[in-house]
Amino acid sequence: MNQQILLNGQWQPSQGQKSFRAMNPATRQPLDEDYPVSPWSEVDAALTAAAAAFETVRDWPGERFAAFLDAFAAGIEANAAAIVAMANLETGLPVEPRLKNVELPRTVSQLRQAAAAAREGSWALATIDVKPNIRSVFGSIGPVAVFGPNNFPCAFNSIAGGDFAAAVAAGNPVLAKGHSSHPATTRLFAEAAQAAAEATGMPPGFVQLIYRTSHEDGARLVSDARIAATGYTGSRSAGLVLKEAADKAGKPIYLELSSINPVYILPGALDERLEGIADEFSASSLMGAGQFCTNPGLVLLLAGRTTDAFIDAVGARFAKARPGTLLSAAVEQSLRAGIDTLRKAGASVVSSSEAEDAGSRCCHPNTLLLADGQAFLNHPHELQAEAFGNAALFVVATDIDQLLAITRCLEGNLTGCLYTHTTGKDDALYDRIEPELRQRVGRLLNDKMPTGVAVSPAMNHGGPYPATGHSGFTAVGIPASLRRFAMLQCYDGVRSARLPPLLQDQNTTGAWRLIDGAWTQASIA
Amino acid sequence: MNQQILLNGQWQPSQGQKSFRAMNPATRQPLDEDYPVSPWSEVDAALTAAAAAFETVRDWPGERFAAFLDAFAAGIEANAAAIVAMANLETGLPVEPRLKNVELPRTVSQLRQAAAAAREGSWALATIDVKPNIRSVFGSIGPVAVFGPNNFPCAFNSIAGGDFAAAVAAGNPVLAKGHSSHPATTRLFAEAAQAAAEATGMPPGFVQLIYRTSHEDGARLVSDARIAATGYTGSRSAGLVLKEAADKAGKPIYLELSSINPVYILPGALDERLEGIADEFSASSLMGAGQFCTNPGLVLLLAGRTTDAFIDAVGARFAKARPGTLLSAAVEQSLRAGIDTLRKAGASVVSSSEAEDAGSRCCHPNTLLLADGQAFLNHPHELQAEAFGNAALFVVATDIDQLLAITRCLEGNLTGCLYTHTTGKDDALYDRIEPELRQRVGRLLNDKMPTGVAVSPAMNHGGPYPATGHSGFTAVGIPASLRRFAMLQCYDGVRSARLPPLLQDQNTTGAWRLIDGAWTQASIA
Repeated sequence: MNQQILLNGQWQPSQGQKSFRAMNPATRQPLDEDYPVSPWSEVDAALTAAAAAFETVRDWPGERFAAFLDAFAAGIEANAAAIVAMANLETGLPVEPRLKNVELPRTVSQLRQAAAAAREGSWALATIDVKPNIRSVFGSIGPVAVFGPNNFPCAFNSIAGGDFAAAVAAGNPVLAKGHSSHPATTRLFAEAAQAAAEATGMPPGFVQLIYRTSHEDGARLVSDARIAATGYTGSRSAGLVLKEAADKAGKPIYLELSSINPVYILPGALDERLEGIADEFSASSLMGAGQFCTNPGLVLLLAGRTTDAFIDAVGARFAKARPGTLLSAAVEQSLRAGIDTLRKAGASVVSSSEAEDAGSRCCHPNTLLLADGQAFLNHPHELQAEAFGNAALFVVATDIDQLLAITRCLEGNLTGCLYTHTTGKDDALYDRIEPELRQRVGRLLNDKMPTGVAVSPAMNHGGPYPATGHSGFTAVGIPASLRRFAMLQCYDGVRSARLPPLLQDQNTTGAWRLIDGAWTQASIA
Repeated sequence: MNQQILLNGQWQPSQGQKSFRAMNPATRQPLDEDYPVSPWSEVDAALTAAAAAFETVRDWPGERFAAFLDAFAAGIEANAAAIVAMANLETGLPVEPRLKNVELPRTVSQLRQAAAAAREGSWALATIDVKPNIRSVFGSIGPVAVFGPNNFPCAFNSIAGGDFAAAVAAGNPVLAKGHSSHPATTRLFAEAAQAAAEATGMPPGFVQLIYRTSHEDGARLVSDARIAATGYTGSRSAGLVLKEAADKAGKPIYLELSSINPVYILPGALDERLEGIADEFSASSLMGAGQFCTNPGLVLLLAGRTTDAFIDAVGARFAKARPGTLLSAAVEQSLRAGIDTLRKAGASVVSSSEAEDAGSRCCHPNTLLLADGQAFLNHPHELQAEAFGNAALFVVATDIDQLLAITRCLEGNLTGCLYTHTTGKDDALYDRIEPELRQRVGRLLNDKMPTGVAVSPAMNHGGPYPATGHSGFTAVGIPASLRRFAMLQCYDGVRSARLPPLLQDQNTTGAWRLIDGAWTQASIA
């Protein structure tokens, strides 16, 4: 008996003939609930309901969306233990500290930050030119489709995560497409979302959930006339199929695809603090079995004795650490394939951990690979293959010129890190590398691994293609992430009473507004 | 003998075997200069030069780009008479007031506004979270291709107009592709640009001009790895070909395509001020022979006696006004084709002016077409065909429900206007129409025609697809238009001395920055 889908305000049976089950990756056992693959007729019905919901809410003030988001956050907290337990069962991610102490609180915090942003309104960059009476603001865009990834069952969940929070805070209904590896976790979130929607008077169809569609119907969904925009986090191959469909229909789609997050560790830094950096790198690389968008998958080094020592030091740590459980058999398989691609292109395995219980759970040895700079330049595409999981490739360049040539081959990435000597010994190298790297990454770090992604206004969890679909937007960080799901709405000579609240002379929420070129929270006199 | 192209800092002969000539539309005579169609080898060389120029300028402060833009503006002013005379010769647009008193001053003003924005930096939305030391800012993206349109030989010229100014102010080299209908005007601008670039120490390749390429090479250009983004203003068909190529390569492309700019004139407004609105509409519709992106091409009315009188009043004005000269034989031809499409879909011509000198200049009778609401609903696609020029379609709906149904069929447009009774008689109708129209247009106007596009911070010259490629961006209005040609660059834990000027603790330019959630011009203590 299939689990029900959330359609037009009701949990209801799917008409789908196909179904799927998730798996417990810690035991390799299938879980016992069946989830439906929705046929197009259901997606179609959901789209119609979302469009109707949007007609109802499109003129609502931010306060209404904030109330829903706050109620939803409270509902999640009230059911946190069950959600965390289910997420652990479906993903193998540890209950503590990961799910209970980090990811679930982050999820709730994001929803509350989004609520605060919706309530206050500064996110919308209200801009008023008083004398000509031209006023503009980012306003809601319409129903948003959200495709969640496998690796954050809570914080990026399609019906509770960052894209969901941003889309709702900007005033849009969300049609969530859950990830097939954690449907029950997604269902628990959707139950809390639906309860919050009812409690706060949101129309049916404002939040909806389907678990799975055919690839063809996914492409049809993102390009449908009733969808205004899409947020997608996941694999590059699936994402690019959706992008093609959305692009063709002129629909914005915000993709967060693969990223190998290059880390440069310069000689002075190694001279100074080799062991510390080896600790930091190994922790960042193997944390969560390496299943982070910002996992440092590529380390760039200059040839030399300290570099050799560093490789040994990391190799020892990789060999010693117990391989983490991977999210699914699919991740295990794709990690193996990614490592194969790297090896075929000339990388060799220099350290590999034991994984004695590989048969009983989804896992893979911690794998450290090594290639020289010339090999990278010979096969830059293959040696940038993402090996999503607990693996990393070290590339050792003969000199700075080769390192720069490698840098110029890098695809767009979410992050890039530079570790340098604290008092300046690496500064000349830094000054040559940084400008090349800067253009290729969304977030540049110094002396810091990329795996922490603070939900903070200045955060950029984005980057040049193919890390994402557009380098001007971020998926994390409020208020900026809301603007993905908004359109610029200008009012020219529109009568005062007809303006939306954020553009009226009286500033009722204290939102920051750009009035005649100056930012202010004041009303217009 | 072909005119030279501007490549890598030098005016040089094209290797192209093909050439073209522009025409004087006021006489239908070809002009006597030959301009080259550049082969791919030249585009390729220009791309390499642009990439090299970007390596030089990417760390420069905004002041450097401002100095160039200001020098360029002064250079244009110094040669204004020649530019205006040439633009008149190539486009048939009147010297006064259009070119000399409106468009050229606007062009110079845009360049100076862009310079001021580059110098000061608020456009970049610098955002600083002090305690976690996460800082982000919009930074330059790389070489930008600009394709200019036919209808603004100055203010949207590929090497002097709004896209050019925005791309440069954001710190990017520009590779301009001139419009084939006014190459000599473009050459004069490029000469001034190159002189300014030399005078202000910009590297060769920072500003470059080619006049024409094959369609295939145009698509190759916008998707080339060395191009970071493209700005295009022009026809929908050519624009969508470029969009497809750019999308596939993951390159941002900002398109300003066709728009028919619906105008609703409600019964109370007609009761109150029929003659005045007929004057306003006719002036806006026929100004510049209707060759504006924001020309009001579609008027939506409710059936009734005043509506009939209004149609007669506008028809009389259309019949009486001398048809303006069209930009080219191609525009003349496409206007005729657009009107044919409308007629075939059920519109009838209710008023047409004399155009007795049609043989000797490019022109077309002022044409007022009429269709009923049901015809529109039967052929919504065809009856939204753009008839770019001095033509307009009036659609008369039987009642508000039909008017709303028509509104729901509207494609994305740059603008939408609502004329209503001044003291409230139309308010109930307004409240039903506005939410539907709002989602379909970038700029909503009250009691005002759409043809004036002020260069003002709150302006939105953008709108939902297919009016443009992305409803979150505007092509006019500074500072917002700069952000199209920028990427979000985050610095996480980056050492203070390594930060770009806009993100350092000391605020040297007085830029507005979002520090810990509050906008301020202050430095960090």
